[in-house]
Amino acid sequence: MRPPFDPTLYLVTDTELCSPRPVADVVRAAVAGGVTAVQVRDKHASRRDLLALTRAVRDALADRPDVPVVVNDAVDVALLAGADGVHVGQDDLPAVEVRALLGPDRLLGLSVESADDLATALRLPPGTVDVVGLSPVWATPTKPEAGPGLGLEAVGELVRTAHAGGLLAVAIGGIDAGRAAAAAATGVDGVCVVSAVCAAADPHAAAATLRAAISPAAAR
Amino acid sequence: MRPPFDPTLYLVTDTELCSPRPVADVVRAAVAGGVTAVQVRDKHASRRDLLALTRAVRDALADRPDVPVVVNDAVDVALLAGADGVHVGQDDLPAVEVRALLGPDRLLGLSVESADDLATALRLPPGTVDVVGLSPVWATPTKPEAGPGLGLEAVGELVRTAHAGGLLAVAIGGIDAGRAAAAAATGVDGVCVVSAVCAAADPHAAAATLRAAISPAAAR
Repeated sequence: MRPPFDPTLYLVTDTELCSPRPVADVVRAAVAGGVTAVQVRDKHASRRDLLALTRAVRDALADRPDVPVVVNDAVDVALLAGADGVHVGQDDLPAVEVRALLGPDRLLGLSVESADDLATALRLPPGTVDVVGLSPVWATPTKPEAGPGLGLEAVGELVRTAHAGGLLAVAIGGIDAGRAAAAAATGVDGVCVVSAVCAAADPHAAAATLRAAISPAAAR
Repeated sequence: MRPPFDPTLYLVTDTELCSPRPVADVVRAAVAGGVTAVQVRDKHASRRDLLALTRAVRDALADRPDVPVVVNDAVDVALLAGADGVHVGQDDLPAVEVRALLGPDRLLGLSVESADDLATALRLPPGTVDVVGLSPVWATPTKPEAGPGLGLEAVGELVRTAHAGGLLAVAIGGIDAGRAAAAAATGVDGVCVVSAVCAAADPHAAAATLRAAISPAAAR
């Protein structure tokens, strides 16, 4: 059984953008503001530091068991931290291998950057992947190597294909308060943000603004 | 139960130094020449590539089950590849955490760079660590950040302390054919080499020469 997973507003952490504030403090404020799921990502951290960071984020959300904490890439860290899942990209460990290590009780997300990537994901054994991260919607400064954006129309098509295959779909890349509504209107199950929250002077307010843009009724 | 582990001549791989030859080819030749244990190390590879590399090395040694294959740092990769163990440095996942993931049937090595590091390792629960890697004996171009060498006298003292605590000890850092005998004479259970084999034009011959320098009788 997977943990509850509401990806409506999915925060992916960036340690440098949060700095000098501890990532866990930014996460805590952002969750209070409306973030519904958290992915701990730090490609520059050692596994030792990433484990400490993930535990700090989990501790900061101890009173919010409804908000899952997922670890980017590092399966060993996710297992040790008791995280709710793992998110992998196309260059990380293959999804089938990650699922073998995770067992059936954790979430697994997979970044897909094209219709081909999604088709491959949909051919995986059922239950391997829970959610695909459509990436990038727009070009993004936090991941310049991701290239130009897919665009809203292509994202909408990928979402429909993912849903038809029984997968959740979230959108990531260049999403800020001004673009969140348009991203959400593609039909995705949630939007991911990095700098829009991590670089915000007030992460609580930034999350609340994003949440209101995505789901006006829920935020009222 | 741990797998058999004879670290007499312990090869730590370096993908760039092996290039353009596949690492697995170099490893196979080196084992034929006298290498007794292999650690797959590639700090620049993605986990996906490291997994493929580890499997290639294991496949290349399918007929040598007496030669254990250990993975540097990546516990998830070691588990997926069915490797014989993991080696971690002071900045990698803490040894106690790694042992928790590995279970009792795999080897765990830990780099120690000082008497303090060794004292900390000896305070770990019994059975956590199997072998300490005393590092670096001499300054080494493959790990310039490791600083100046410990020197032979200090290595000898650390070996005696490790043995008194029930741990195996290997020496690493700057060991080549000209220095292997002196390193072995400190009383270590084995010497680790990187460039002395990976950068050699003939890894089989290089391993044989090193082996003869370390244990003249065995190589006769």
